[in-house]
Amino acid sequence: MKLSIARNELNDALQTVSSAISPNSPQQALKGILLEAADSSIVITGSDADISIRKTIPATEDNRLQIESEGSILIDSSWMTQICRKIDSDTITIDNIDGTLTLFSGKSAEFRINGMNPADYPNIDFSEPASSMTIRSDVLAQIIDQTKFAASVKETRPVLTGVNFRLSAGTLICTGTDSYRLAKKTIPFSSDSDFNITIPGKTLDKVKSNLLSAGSEEIRFAIDTRKAQFRIENVILQSRLLDGIYPDTDRLIPTEFAHTLKINRTDLIRALDRSMFMKSDNMIINRLDCSENGVKLSNRSQEVGEFDEDLFCSFTGADLCISFSANYLADAAKSLQCDEIELRFPGPMKPFLLVDPQDETVLHLVLPVRTYN
Amino acid sequence: MKLSIARNELNDALQTVSSAISPNSPQQALKGILLEAADSSIVITGSDADISIRKTIPATEDNRLQIESEGSILIDSSWMTQICRKIDSDTITIDNIDGTLTLFSGKSAEFRINGMNPADYPNIDFSEPASSMTIRSDVLAQIIDQTKFAASVKETRPVLTGVNFRLSAGTLICTGTDSYRLAKKTIPFSSDSDFNITIPGKTLDKVKSNLLSAGSEEIRFAIDTRKAQFRIENVILQSRLLDGIYPDTDRLIPTEFAHTLKINRTDLIRALDRSMFMKSDNMIINRLDCSENGVKLSNRSQEVGEFDEDLFCSFTGADLCISFSANYLADAAKSLQCDEIELRFPGPMKPFLLVDPQDETVLHLVLPVRTYN
Repeated sequence: MKLSIARNELNDALQTVSSAISPNSPQQALKGILLEAADSSIVITGSDADISIRKTIPATEDNRLQIESEGSILIDSSWMTQICRKIDSDTITIDNIDGTLTLFSGKSAEFRINGMNPADYPNIDFSEPASSMTIRSDVLAQIIDQTKFAASVKETRPVLTGVNFRLSAGTLICTGTDSYRLAKKTIPFSSDSDFNITIPGKTLDKVKSNLLSAGSEEIRFAIDTRKAQFRIENVILQSRLLDGIYPDTDRLIPTEFAHTLKINRTDLIRALDRSMFMKSDNMIINRLDCSENGVKLSNRSQEVGEFDEDLFCSFTGADLCISFSANYLADAAKSLQCDEIELRFPGPMKPFLLVDPQDETVLHLVLPVRTYN
Repeated sequence: MKLSIARNELNDALQTVSSAISPNSPQQALKGILLEAADSSIVITGSDADISIRKTIPATEDNRLQIESEGSILIDSSWMTQICRKIDSDTITIDNIDGTLTLFSGKSAEFRINGMNPADYPNIDFSEPASSMTIRSDVLAQIIDQTKFAASVKETRPVLTGVNFRLSAGTLICTGTDSYRLAKKTIPFSSDSDFNITIPGKTLDKVKSNLLSAGSEEIRFAIDTRKAQFRIENVILQSRLLDGIYPDTDRLIPTEFAHTLKINRTDLIRALDRSMFMKSDNMIINRLDCSENGVKLSNRSQEVGEFDEDLFCSFTGADLCISFSANYLADAAKSLQCDEIELRFPGPMKPFLLVDPQDETVLHLVLPVRTYN
């Protein structure tokens, strides 16, 4: 294999595919980036076995890709990205000179790098799953921003580390929960067949950073029972799905409310932030004391002391006192973009909602915390 | 004690003094910031026992400092800085309400914080040492930039973790070395009495970040046998000195050279940087093969492969082959600001110099590495 290509073009592709690679992979070959050169294009692949990213670069005038001979190389991801970032010319030449030994040359810098055998790379099936559809990039970005933060970071219930995508009767419901808080986004969506899948949270992070930032208006989304695949232009990102039945969360969401608090979103975030260094047993538990005369946010910690703040807001309903994890409420408030938000309480000690009254497609549920003071 | 003050002014002072504080100090009181309010000024102190910083804030119209009653408080550094950064008003009121319990209030936010007893704070002597002088801030900043990086980061020989300041016969010589490389800055300097002291590297870092960035043209510098003290305006930073005899390094510095290499500084830094991921036994050893026909920089690693680059430079002298740690040469080159640098070699296997030919006040010495290939 011998080829030359614009350094920037290769650099971009290496950044994209290397984001799938885990440098500590137990499988040696998966620490590498696979580069396959065919007749008039090259295909670059990175994978950590769960998530795989492939980018195809066809030869164009802009990218100056010239393939002198076909073939493939498999090179440690960190070495290859560093060489490409640092080499001393705008065009980089890659020449597989002897077995797995590969020469990268710039203007006067030359790297002879010990590669791995491309035959050792797992055979990753990038064929498109049967059930495919198209989704607007900004809509998918919003789904990820508004639900993924609520997914669990603990592996005790693996299915909760993902976001559940459920399509039924023309409605797509996306849910993230760690069983202490829940985020749910509901949008109208049409597709040939219904589905109910759970996509790992880290896959969604990589979709966002690699595909949704690329400026494409739409993204192709295809699934089967084992994998989800996302495509834009020449990039494919695919991921295994999480096994296990996602819990039925609909019944958790209250529909009747006895108390409502309306507050400026930024004011609430700042007030919560002020109290955040006051921890009790490593948890940040805030309390709201609400009456029609005023609403007080407070937090106390045996070690640190006490925090109190009268919130500038409006409250309707009977007097209410409720405690909750400040982080959960702050995360939910930060995931919205509106000026004013509403907290809707069914009653003391019951899970309550945080919503944007202008956009009821998204709701956040927070479980209260029982305290004894 | 009760006072109010502009939040920004207090914030700046807390940032400055808290940089001396080690959050893991074994001495509980030293985790705190001491705030003492007198008649018409407040004094704020932070210390980790080795380094202490004190800032005095006199009442002015700008800082809106009003002292209602005198006294002192001692509050955990992290809590106090967070409160001051986040409180909901431009003026902050601090009121020592009961024993060590202190109330910080903004507009509607109130923090009642468990303080410590100010009597437990060590009595730090901030009196000015007898031997004092003035130094230009930009000169001191340059001394630190050009010597401190070469000091040791290992505690095996504590005196090498500092920079040695030696004044004799109107010349100030500042030296940093970890015994594998050495940086030396020599400037004319007048003072009443000669001295030979070693200031800890981390003290110099804090002087640079806290005092030299404050925009003052000059800094006052005073020493005795135990401490060094730096002063600008209302800030005092003082530090213990390092014990032990600093090695006599003058005899290590070669004065006769058989080979000279002139090269663009940025080109050298970039070429070294290109080879930096090639490690052998976790060391980055580069090699220069110099002849009047050309100079080749190379690096090889059993694991990774080989790197070669023909340098665009001029070389005079007999053919030379020398190996060295790429990091050391790169650090030295980065500490200079000139366009062209000179490498001066006494011969193979001998320590060599890196200098700015336009500014011979600074020199860098690098020890070669013996290699067997």
